[in-house]
Amino acid sequence: MLKAQYTERGPIPQNSITAVEFEAPALAEDEALVELIASPINPSDVLTLTGEYGILPPMPATGGNEGVGKIVKLGGKGPAVGQNVMLPVGIGTWSTHIVCKTAQLIPVPNEADPKQLAMMSINPPTALLMLEQFVDLEAGDWVIQNAANSGVGSYLVQLAKIKGLKTINIVRRESAIEGVKAQGGDVVLVDGPGLAKEVAKITGDKLPKLAIDAIGGAATDRIGACLAVGGTLVNYGLMSGEPCHLSAKSLVFSDVTLKGFWLARWFRTATPEQQMAVFGKITKYIIEGKLHTPIHAEYPVSEIKQAVAAAAEGGRDGKVLVVG
Amino acid sequence: MLKAQYTERGPIPQNSITAVEFEAPALAEDEALVELIASPINPSDVLTLTGEYGILPPMPATGGNEGVGKIVKLGGKGPAVGQNVMLPVGIGTWSTHIVCKTAQLIPVPNEADPKQLAMMSINPPTALLMLEQFVDLEAGDWVIQNAANSGVGSYLVQLAKIKGLKTINIVRRESAIEGVKAQGGDVVLVDGPGLAKEVAKITGDKLPKLAIDAIGGAATDRIGACLAVGGTLVNYGLMSGEPCHLSAKSLVFSDVTLKGFWLARWFRTATPEQQMAVFGKITKYIIEGKLHTPIHAEYPVSEIKQAVAAAAEGGRDGKVLVVG
Repeated sequence: MLKAQYTERGPIPQNSITAVEFEAPALAEDEALVELIASPINPSDVLTLTGEYGILPPMPATGGNEGVGKIVKLGGKGPAVGQNVMLPVGIGTWSTHIVCKTAQLIPVPNEADPKQLAMMSINPPTALLMLEQFVDLEAGDWVIQNAANSGVGSYLVQLAKIKGLKTINIVRRESAIEGVKAQGGDVVLVDGPGLAKEVAKITGDKLPKLAIDAIGGAATDRIGACLAVGGTLVNYGLMSGEPCHLSAKSLVFSDVTLKGFWLARWFRTATPEQQMAVFGKITKYIIEGKLHTPIHAEYPVSEIKQAVAAAAEGGRDGKVLVVG
Repeated sequence: MLKAQYTERGPIPQNSITAVEFEAPALAEDEALVELIASPINPSDVLTLTGEYGILPPMPATGGNEGVGKIVKLGGKGPAVGQNVMLPVGIGTWSTHIVCKTAQLIPVPNEADPKQLAMMSINPPTALLMLEQFVDLEAGDWVIQNAANSGVGSYLVQLAKIKGLKTINIVRRESAIEGVKAQGGDVVLVDGPGLAKEVAKITGDKLPKLAIDAIGGAATDRIGACLAVGGTLVNYGLMSGEPCHLSAKSLVFSDVTLKGFWLARWFRTATPEQQMAVFGKITKYIIEGKLHTPIHAEYPVSEIKQAVAAAAEGGRDGKVLVVG
């Protein structure tokens, strides 16, 4: 059995983490042994390794925060051996085998694609909640986002479509356009100084009331300039490594509000019923094939350094998965 | 008769404006001739000359947006000749004589200091509305602001005191500390990288829920980092010339909201009753001597270039006035 462990943090994330052998402990009566099927490497995982994330677990720690596995052994009663299950969020999922409380495992249909379900706990609710929590939107409204070819970006395109919203998607390179169109993006534009004018040409007087930013720096200001007067700009990440920039033109003269979104806070504050409603919706969409995100590459736990290096690098068009 | 006129805009504001002679036209029956007593040069006036402000009047235009004068002639009926009056906002007040509709003139007590009243239409309502419109504050709460030795900053200190709020005031140089303390600032700190720690030491667990920023750039991020979780950061100016910067630490992980304030929008959206309530309160405080801001220098209209240059320069501890 192998797990991807880190005992330090530093600027090059793959240098901090190593696959180490471990022996699975004997199972208590309320525990199960789960064999990993797949667990994604999310941007927040990379930032946890570099020390730039908002909460940093004590070390040594096992990387990985979501995934799907198969029950291979039970300490007592529980779902059948062979049942696919969602792993609890934040448990350290980059591990060939995971021991956890049987009660925390959520069975998922064995016939649904476990790799798509492995990515459902973090990015899809982030996209869904940003679409629902900040601005009251109506079918036909435009929403604009950057980093549209990211994991969250891909889900946001598909969830917006389900809601009857139209998306303007900003990417940073021509080669990313096709992928976002294939996901269902209505309009895909390459970021640049003329962005606000291009957007206004497309939307006419129905300028977007909601903009979603994952980049920060001057890109925040460029997407903010595309908003209607009184619009809301929601940031959930800083891929540029720079703080959000917002000029007086948007903030003061166009009455734009800048807010942040952090899924970890939602997990702390949402009621179990609210969480069930969100995850129920997402599971259903994935099983129905309405929600799907591309996979860039898969690595076994033994190749965790290559996996993290690939996830930390730009220019991908899909998720990096750690697989069992 | 002299007025300060500009026919172009450019980076050096005093280069754009010149004192030119004019003949007062004959008065219509509903008009009055007012002799200027005093009109301030506000930051928004300087930005109008450089072309950086949110609304730019058509040219040629006379500078100046607020002031107090004395009625010297009436076209028909109206307040007595010799009565001090507030000039209408935005009328072009840097002029030895102003012709305007008698009905738009608001009489003010001749025994109240006209120079203090001349500065009441823009900065005091900006300070008051920022304290009242964004966060519900209770007596004893801390509010934090930067540019505390600016015009708005000075009014904010005094209005906060009237409301029973305590202020943490950020300045950019040691030499500004005394002036802000003299205005009644509870705490005055020089801006720097350790700001958030200094503030937390002072407030303990009663961190400010409202921060007021007039500087932009990295200063926005430094004052944002002083806020309580869920706090609101209001920007009303960019003295640094840079857009506001806000990092994930504040925006995403501390749930800080960044908003802008623009008095011109309030003038457009507030009801006459709301406007009367705000200006009534401010006039009363000025007449009672509870609201007072220092004057750095006074210049006649003939010296408008020197006046604008002085207003555009940093390092002042008071307002620059154009006087009749």
